[in-house]
Amino acid sequence: MNKTIGFIGLGNLGLPVATNLLSAGYSLVVYNRTESKAQPLVAQGAKLVSRPVDTITTGGIVVSLLWDDEALESVAANPEFLKKLGNGGIHISMSTVSPDTSKKLAVLHAEHGSFYIDAPIFGRPEAAVAKQLWIPYSGPKQAKEQIQPILNAVGAQGIFDFGEEVGAANLVKLVGNFLIISAGRSVNEALTIVKEKGFEPKAVLDMLTATLFPSPIYKSYGSRLVESNITFLQNRIPIKDIGIFKKTAELVGSPTPISNALLELLKGENKED
Amino acid sequence: MNKTIGFIGLGNLGLPVATNLLSAGYSLVVYNRTESKAQPLVAQGAKLVSRPVDTITTGGIVVSLLWDDEALESVAANPEFLKKLGNGGIHISMSTVSPDTSKKLAVLHAEHGSFYIDAPIFGRPEAAVAKQLWIPYSGPKQAKEQIQPILNAVGAQGIFDFGEEVGAANLVKLVGNFLIISAGRSVNEALTIVKEKGFEPKAVLDMLTATLFPSPIYKSYGSRLVESNITFLQNRIPIKDIGIFKKTAELVGSPTPISNALLELLKGENKED
Repeated sequence: MNKTIGFIGLGNLGLPVATNLLSAGYSLVVYNRTESKAQPLVAQGAKLVSRPVDTITTGGIVVSLLWDDEALESVAANPEFLKKLGNGGIHISMSTVSPDTSKKLAVLHAEHGSFYIDAPIFGRPEAAVAKQLWIPYSGPKQAKEQIQPILNAVGAQGIFDFGEEVGAANLVKLVGNFLIISAGRSVNEALTIVKEKGFEPKAVLDMLTATLFPSPIYKSYGSRLVESNITFLQNRIPIKDIGIFKKTAELVGSPTPISNALLELLKGENKED
Repeated sequence: MNKTIGFIGLGNLGLPVATNLLSAGYSLVVYNRTESKAQPLVAQGAKLVSRPVDTITTGGIVVSLLWDDEALESVAANPEFLKKLGNGGIHISMSTVSPDTSKKLAVLHAEHGSFYIDAPIFGRPEAAVAKQLWIPYSGPKQAKEQIQPILNAVGAQGIFDFGEEVGAANLVKLVGNFLIISAGRSVNEALTIVKEKGFEPKAVLDMLTATLFPSPIYKSYGSRLVESNITFLQNRIPIKDIGIFKKTAELVGSPTPISNALLELLKGENKED
C-alpha cells in the first residue's frame, strides 16, 4: 500500500481524515491555504505543496475537503487541475456541496478521462479522529471499487453506496445535516421549556431518548444542554449547510417551511454576536 | 381485582385504553359525550352512564381522557365531581393538557381530600390497542402506588415516574409531541427534496435511520412518505398540541422559533382544506 494520494483542505475534518490515511499506510501530498495547519502531517511524513494542483499524481487519486461549492469549484473546475488528474484519475470530493455542483464537476472530469466521486462525511472532528464517520458515496462503479479501501480507512463506522449518479451522496449529506440541525434546535427548544418551568430536563431527556428518540443526535444535543447549558457552538457551518439545502430545494420547487425557520433562527443568532 | 373504575372519554385513545382495563379484569363505569361509541365496551360488560360524575365511586378511581384543557376542566373542576370523588379518591388524568391546568385541578382535588395524577399517554390508537404505550406520570406518592397496576395494564411498554409535582408528566407529553411533530415534518421536508431531485428516498431513509436517527418516529414518518406518499393525516391534534406547547413556553418566556414555524405550517394546511 505505498500508494500516494493528494489531499486538499486540512480543516477541522480534513486534518483528522488525512491523518487516518497516513496511519493506514498511504503516502500523502497535501495542500492547505493556511500552510501551518499541515505541520502535524508533515511531521508524520506528508509532503506539503503550495498549490492544489501540485498534490495530484496523474492517473492517481486526489481527495478534497473544502468549505463550500465556490471553494471546491475554484480548485476542481480549474483546467490545469483537470488536465493533470488526467486519464483514469479519481477525485474523491468530500465537501458538503450541492448535488448540482458535483454533477457539473463530474462532467468536466469525464471530459478529461477522470472520475469524480462525491463522498461527503458525517461526523464531528472527534469522530473523524476516531475513524467513526459515516460516509455516503456515489459515482461511477469502476472508480468506486478502487476507492473502497480509502473510504474504509477513514469511515470505519459505515460507508453507504448511493449508486452511480453523482450528487446523490451530496443530497444525503445535505438532508442529514438539515435533520441534525432541526433535531438539535428542537431538543433545545423543548428542554429549555422544561428548565424554565422548573422541572428536571435530564429525566425528560432520559425518557425520550429511551423511547421515541434513541438517536445519538438527540442524546448529544440534549446532554449538552442538560450538563453544561452550552447548547450551540457559534460557527458558520449550520448557516452554510441549511443555506445549500434550502437553495437545492427551491431549485426543484420543494417546500422549505422548517429550513426557512432554521435559517432565520441561525441568522438572528449570528447578528447578536 | 373486582375493582370498579370510572372512565370518562372514549375517543380514539380512550376506547382502546378502557378496553384493556376491562381485559385486565377491572369493572368499568363509562361516560362519553357520543354515547354510541361506548357500545363495544357495554357489550363487554361496562356500564354506561349519562353524566361524567356518575362514573365515580366515592373514594375510588376515575380515569379521564379528554380533548383539551377546557374539556377536562368542565368535567373535573365541577364541584359535584370533586365532592363525589371525595376523600381518598384518585383521578388519573390522561389528557394532553397544560401543566398549569393540572396544577389548578390538583389543588381543587386536594381541597376535597382526593388525589389528581397526570398520566398522559404516548402512542397511536393501534399502540393503545396493543398496550404498547409509554406513560409518564406525576403526582402524590401515595396515590401513584395505588394506580401502578392500572398504568401497567394499559402501558406495558413502559411507565415513567416524574416525581410528586403534578404537571411534570403533562410537560413531558407536550415536549414529546412537539418533538414528534417537528421530527415528522422535518423528515417530510427532507425526503420530499430527495424525491423532487429524482433520487430514491428509501435508500436515504434507510441510511439515516441506521445511523443518526434510529428512532421509531423517523422510521414511521419516513416510511409513510416512501411507501404511500401519504404523509400526514389531516387531524386537529398537532395544531392543538403545538398550541398548548407554545402557550406553555410563552408563559415562562421560553423561546419558540420552531414551534412558531410548525404552528404556521399546520394552520396553513388546515386553511387549504
